[in-house]
Amino acid sequence: MKYEHIQQEAYEANMQLPKLGLVLFTFGNVSAADKNLGVFAIKPSGVPYADLSPDKMVIVDFDGNIAEGSLRPSSDTKTHAVLYKHWNGIGGIVHTHSTYATAWAQAQRDIPIFGTTHADHNTTDIPCAPPMNDEMIKGNYEYETGFQIINCFNERRLDYKETEMMLVGNHAPFTWGKNAAKAVYNSAVLEQIAQMALFTEQINNNAPRLKDALIKKHFERKHGPDSYYGQ
Amino acid sequence: MKYEHIQQEAYEANMQLPKLGLVLFTFGNVSAADKNLGVFAIKPSGVPYADLSPDKMVIVDFDGNIAEGSLRPSSDTKTHAVLYKHWNGIGGIVHTHSTYATAWAQAQRDIPIFGTTHADHNTTDIPCAPPMNDEMIKGNYEYETGFQIINCFNERRLDYKETEMMLVGNHAPFTWGKNAAKAVYNSAVLEQIAQMALFTEQINNNAPRLKDALIKKHFERKHGPDSYYGQ
Amino acid sequence: MKYEHIQQEAYEANMQLPKLGLVLFTFGNVSAADKNLGVFAIKPSGVPYADLSPDKMVIVDFDGNIAEGSLRPSSDTKTHAVLYKHWNGIGGIVHTHSTYATAWAQAQRDIPIFGTTHADHNTTDIPCAPPMNDEMIKGNYEYETGFQIINCFNERRLDYKETEMMLVGNHAPFTWGKNAAKAVYNSAVLEQIAQMALFTEQINNNAPRLKDALIKKHFERKHGPDSYYGQ
Amino acid sequence: MKYEHIQQEAYEANMQLPKLGLVLFTFGNVSAADKNLGVFAIKPSGVPYADLSPDKMVIVDFDGNIAEGSLRPSSDTKTHAVLYKHWNGIGGIVHTHSTYATAWAQAQRDIPIFGTTHADHNTTDIPCAPPMNDEMIKGNYEYETGFQIINCFNERRLDYKETEMMLVGNHAPFTWGKNAAKAVYNSAVLEQIAQMALFTEQINNNAPRLKDALIKKHFERKHGPDSYYGQ
Repeated sequence: MKYEHIQQEAYEANMQLPKLGLVLFTFGNVSAADKNLGVFAIKPSGVPYADLSPDKMVIVDFDGNIAEGSLRPSSDTKTHAVLYKHWNGIGGIVHTHSTYATAWAQAQRDIPIFGTTHADHNTTDIPCAPPMNDEMIKGNYEYETGFQIINCFNERRLDYKETEMMLVGNHAPFTWGKNAAKAVYNSAVLEQIAQMALFTEQINNNAPRLKDALIKKHFERKHGPDSYYGQ
Repeated sequence: MKYEHIQQEAYEANMQLPKLGLVLFTFGNVSAADKNLGVFAIKPSGVPYADLSPDKMVIVDFDGNIAEGSLRPSSDTKTHAVLYKHWNGIGGIVHTHSTYATAWAQAQRDIPIFGTTHADHNTTDIPCAPPMNDEMIKGNYEYETGFQIINCFNERRLDYKETEMMLVGNHAPFTWGKNAAKAVYNSAVLEQIAQMALFTEQINNNAPRLKDALIKKHFERKHGPDSYYGQ
Repeated sequence: MKYEHIQQEAYEANMQLPKLGLVLFTFGNVSAADKNLGVFAIKPSGVPYADLSPDKMVIVDFDGNIAEGSLRPSSDTKTHAVLYKHWNGIGGIVHTHSTYATAWAQAQRDIPIFGTTHADHNTTDIPCAPPMNDEMIKGNYEYETGFQIINCFNERRLDYKETEMMLVGNHAPFTWGKNAAKAVYNSAVLEQIAQMALFTEQINNNAPRLKDALIKKHFERKHGPDSYYGQ
Repeated sequence: MKYEHIQQEAYEANMQLPKLGLVLFTFGNVSAADKNLGVFAIKPSGVPYADLSPDKMVIVDFDGNIAEGSLRPSSDTKTHAVLYKHWNGIGGIVHTHSTYATAWAQAQRDIPIFGTTHADHNTTDIPCAPPMNDEMIKGNYEYETGFQIINCFNERRLDYKETEMMLVGNHAPFTWGKNAAKAVYNSAVLEQIAQMALFTEQINNNAPRLKDALIKKHFERKHGPDSYYGQ
């Protein structure tokens, strides 16, 4: 009973992925955390979205151990656990193989900040973490993927509370947020940014990055003490 | 009561944006003006399209002051106000971040007039206004965006009654028309033109612009005293 | 009463265009001919697809004169009339501004025959007629468009009974067939061929044309005395 | 009666093709085999998906002879027969002209393994068989297409139980699997991989192939004795 709220939250967020066109078959997963209880609810592995229900969401602690549930959790569960354990401010995580964001990850390039759609949500290029080394791959792969993400943010001095989306090189995007719904929102925004950036370079292969004054202005419209977007 | 007609008009026009595939989440807004009353109805800021109703449309005067409504209007409201104040002939305005038009805006290029689909609606390339200077950005940004649009038309000697669509560089498209429904129509046409123009250049990177005789012929089929399109 | 059969046929074929994703708003039209009566039924100009009904289809003779109907026929009516008058074997014509086919038309390039999808329907590249000269544009434009199409086929010694689709340079595609349904089918096939051909060149800018033996084999599978496709 | 199970299986799998966006009109077919009975059920030729029913699936033996059914089977039937006869482990086959996979086939290029989406399903590039020689084309074409596929796998020392998808040069994709549903799943995966690979090269025309450690890791997550994906 005590996990029902995050099971419901994770279920609803997972069901948004196919509606938003972000997943084919089962190529994605969402989790929702309760920081006080120290656990998160996550999609079971390989179960089609049409067969999901809230009670099928698996409860896992921040070390990756199953706390409740009879199904095997998503194969990416340890990556989620590492992020929840080290990034205190987040309550939801999404992983997809959405088409355009994944293409940028496969191309191993950061997504340049070309316009205000990007700046409304981020003040920086979307970072693409380099592929991990072979030792880490052969070891505890999904656990190391969590550190691959964290290390990328540390090396670039990025703040995970400000930049809530990134690409794992050769692999695919991860996004997060204060809750699962915000993390799903970020996944859809990232896919849109990734698509526009590809077309922008095709239209003008010398397209300039957005200038600093516009980056600052647009981000502050939606974020921080002087924001004036929304109700 | 006296604003119900433009609230209804603005509501219906806003609801067309997701149906036409022109917006993700709340990335767009439509307004409908009553020139005699000197006000327009506009979408409230950050409210999902599924939650809109006619009475939620905010009434704003042409100086950007709220005349009626308890919700905060779109963050782009001042841009709408400036255009209504200076361009007497228009009754509706649309702003979206539609994918292909936004990519051209991010690429900071005018959309070349490549074919009759374009010429059925415009006699010129779709203008892309250069990004505004830093002083204007730091000042009254959305207000200045209105002048960025008007200045672009003045400098190029374009007639806003003839060319009803444009791109704000690094940002996204604006369109307008005699009423909100026409402005939405123009947004969808612009997105289609933008998509075709990208593909045209990919198929032939020396694709020629449409010749003058065809530009004139197609525009006159749909516009002016000798038009013979429609009923 | 005597035109009901072609009005019904034209109505049903027109309604397929939005379902197949081939038109935005009213950017397309279909006609269906009765060769014995010497007339065709065609979409009225500028009427949204949702508002169409069989009785609104306008009856026009092969010289372009209205035989029955209170609405103005499609602005492209004279082009249809010229084709019916000169190409005896056809019973339906479609004009759209479908995205990829129109991009090839704007690029003023024939669509190369790259694969069997193309060869299942045509033995040649899809021809793109060059834009007409200024005299013809200023004259009876839609009437001349019919001759632009016929002249292109004559100059290239193409058989309109074998190649049932083409591009008018700077403009958009026309297709035809034994009846309106077949002409609509050809429009969708052309759009698919046009899309695949763009991607083929993007994947390999030296992609070879299909070799003659395969062209012959695939066309004969579906056409001619030894065909063995279908029931 | 004794073929009902494979007719039902083939019917359901065929109906997935339009739902997954993999076919226009009738440009695809699925078969389902019963290895013990030595027959397969396959879509009838040229029948629209909307008109299909399980009893219309034609029963054919592994030499391509009709065992039961009054309709003509798919024109690609002999290709299916050859594959079932020579590749013992497969129970379902799919042929489509899906847009992106067909574009790679037309470009006559293997699809490079760029990321984990690809590696989750294959350890190699997706092979593209070269077009067959003119003698084979003029002979028993569909029968030879089966050998074109098998020869390609033999020459490259690929295992059809591991790589369940491929491209026939200038033509289009074929996929297979333990049953018809798995073969359809593979068709959708292939289309997604093909789309992402095109965009990957457009974003970075020197995009590196996935490194061996990641190929091995991701394939083993989903396949083999130590797999841990799914329930």
